[in-house]
Amino acid sequence: MARQAEFAPRLRLGIVGLGRAFTLMLPTFLADRRVQLVGACDPREQARSQFEQDFDAPAFETIEALAADSNVDALYIASPHQFHAEHTRIAAAYRKHVLVEKPMALSLDECDQMIADCAEAGVKLIVGHCHSFDAPYLRTRELIGSGEFGAVKMIHALNYTDYLLRPRRPEELSTAEGGGAVFSQAAHQVDVVRLLAGSCATRVRAAVGNWDPARPTEGAYTATLWFENGAFASITYNGYGHFDSDEWMDWVGEMGQAKSPDAYGGARRLLQQVQSADEEARLKAEGTYGGKRYIAPATADTATAFQHFGPIIVSCEGGDLKPMADAVMIYRPHSRDRLMLERPTVPRSEVIDELYLAHFYGITPLHNGKWARDTLEICLAMLRSSEEQRDVRLGVNVEVNQSCENQS
Amino acid sequence: MARQAEFAPRLRLGIVGLGRAFTLMLPTFLADRRVQLVGACDPREQARSQFEQDFDAPAFETIEALAADSNVDALYIASPHQFHAEHTRIAAAYRKHVLVEKPMALSLDECDQMIADCAEAGVKLIVGHCHSFDAPYLRTRELIGSGEFGAVKMIHALNYTDYLLRPRRPEELSTAEGGGAVFSQAAHQVDVVRLLAGSCATRVRAAVGNWDPARPTEGAYTATLWFENGAFASITYNGYGHFDSDEWMDWVGEMGQAKSPDAYGGARRLLQQVQSADEEARLKAEGTYGGKRYIAPATADTATAFQHFGPIIVSCEGGDLKPMADAVMIYRPHSRDRLMLERPTVPRSEVIDELYLAHFYGITPLHNGKWARDTLEICLAMLRSSEEQRDVRLGVNVEVNQSCENQS
Repeated sequence: MARQAEFAPRLRLGIVGLGRAFTLMLPTFLADRRVQLVGACDPREQARSQFEQDFDAPAFETIEALAADSNVDALYIASPHQFHAEHTRIAAAYRKHVLVEKPMALSLDECDQMIADCAEAGVKLIVGHCHSFDAPYLRTRELIGSGEFGAVKMIHALNYTDYLLRPRRPEELSTAEGGGAVFSQAAHQVDVVRLLAGSCATRVRAAVGNWDPARPTEGAYTATLWFENGAFASITYNGYGHFDSDEWMDWVGEMGQAKSPDAYGGARRLLQQVQSADEEARLKAEGTYGGKRYIAPATADTATAFQHFGPIIVSCEGGDLKPMADAVMIYRPHSRDRLMLERPTVPRSEVIDELYLAHFYGITPLHNGKWARDTLEICLAMLRSSEEQRDVRLGVNVEVNQSCENQS
Repeated sequence: MARQAEFAPRLRLGIVGLGRAFTLMLPTFLADRRVQLVGACDPREQARSQFEQDFDAPAFETIEALAADSNVDALYIASPHQFHAEHTRIAAAYRKHVLVEKPMALSLDECDQMIADCAEAGVKLIVGHCHSFDAPYLRTRELIGSGEFGAVKMIHALNYTDYLLRPRRPEELSTAEGGGAVFSQAAHQVDVVRLLAGSCATRVRAAVGNWDPARPTEGAYTATLWFENGAFASITYNGYGHFDSDEWMDWVGEMGQAKSPDAYGGARRLLQQVQSADEEARLKAEGTYGGKRYIAPATADTATAFQHFGPIIVSCEGGDLKPMADAVMIYRPHSRDRLMLERPTVPRSEVIDELYLAHFYGITPLHNGKWARDTLEICLAMLRSSEEQRDVRLGVNVEVNQSCENQS
């Protein structure tokens, strides 16, 4: 879609929070001509002045000032997790469409409120970027939808990263404040698996791992999900920075970048230089937009492959599908084929697809509030299942899951 | 050990059942000078005459005749699963040590009886070959035992094979008769994971997959195991013959053989030639010892690597260990190393190690009856957990699991 937009109207986007999430979306905003950055807000003065310089657009201290700007069509809410609900409320009050980062919020009540706020205001709510936007998964979903392979029966997803060793703010290491691998990483893995299962999850059983006293939140988990259509999924994650499963993704990293096996231990080496939580938070800030260690993202031309979230195998009645960073491996009864995907022109352009269609054509996004709420419900259920040592049933006593099969 | 045995006394072994299990052990028996095949029994006349011709030793129709032979020190019971308990009873009655194939039996009562029969007779009971004998896992266990990596926290094991498509006798496709992936394949994966966890399993939650109406038994499963020491393990298996996880084992197959990715679909093509269950059973028999399609196993020299059971990652507090077919990958905080293992001289010589030490030195084997019984308990619990949709606690109401931490 991105390529056809040369003469089309542009969506005017305001940025709420110029931190790491924004940094990761910036290559998209720079390369996708369908979107124009027309304003921002952030509490950090350095970030604001860098934004004003880079985009010749105003940067405010508060979200209210940005949301009130009549030049803005939609807000990208990339503030810390704990502010998502409040910032969505403000955006909706000013009748701006909302693209909010994952996780949508920290509780289901907050999600429900966000959905209600946007519905009442008549604006669209999209949650992402999440890796379930990535083209290889969307293509895999299409292949499943073709019917050639029969019903999905079993999905297996795993991801071994250095997630827990990257520089963090203190709240990112506190589960109660929305930190840890379940809120931050299962949000991706669960979302991808739900997209591929194509059915409502009905129950979950999980075990979480939290074994580094210096970083006292979940660094690992394993979970089984059961779906209404009879499929089950097994998801496993380990962010303690040892084995790196990008080895099984042709050494393409999460952001679609070529990766060297010899860069082993880099996150740990960097982390060992910091002496305190303050210093670590500063290190993180320095590496993001406006910070002194900030390096502007490479242009879209350097993305050799799509983004991904680790190895995933979808087993259907009549074959397996294995999305890779640049292809979908198709295991048919008598042949195994590598279906190459067209090289990405704009990273994460799939997010702009949904936002653009929502604003200009009124099309309800796939990754809407209800969708993201159901993913959060599963993440919360994972924590509870591990704590209470039992299955947690999903969608019990609340009106949920009724629409999860017909999101498209 | 195998190399030192040139002038040592030989263990005189009788073979009960000249089927596929025997075929798979034969390279070991031929290459390991510590063992001598002195007799066999099998209902198939062709198999008996081939044995007598190959080994210049008697082959009987019944196990009783073989067990009564005073020339025999130990019996290798490789008859179909459902006969393991009865054949062990007969062997013990004649005071022969027992090496019985996995799965040990089909019920815990049978296991308990086998353990009691051997204890009363004063003979040793070893269960195997199971993949937990494989040198890479034993070496990984030693590395864990060194203490360098701290406690085991999480294990992830997966295996994607063509198990369900290989030619089968009808009972191998009936779970009630001990068929299917849980009895036949989880027996390996659970055993390896238990060995590496080094602790009693306390509970299990599983989902099994059974989606090929033509082969109506478990072809896939996923399970989570919890251990007394706080570790958890996630195991996943799919035997429907699509994605092949040997890709992640450097294209070394389960038997330690070099494997070609281009051999894709071979088991399915062979299977499609058969028209009935009888024909399939005949196909299986033809491919085993004495059959017209039987090809004598390659010599030990062709084994380029150890046998294995798919990718496994052991995450400890201070690093990950990933056993491969010829090495153990060690992921330390700041370095990743490939610890090469000495090239195997005799495949599965680890089984003869335990049998030989048991017979000549009275040493209790690691893979004894109690050990194998506990693995079967977990396999049965997996079936029950999937059926009843809940955790199944292990070792409840029976005196089990008390010795599982000190098997060595």
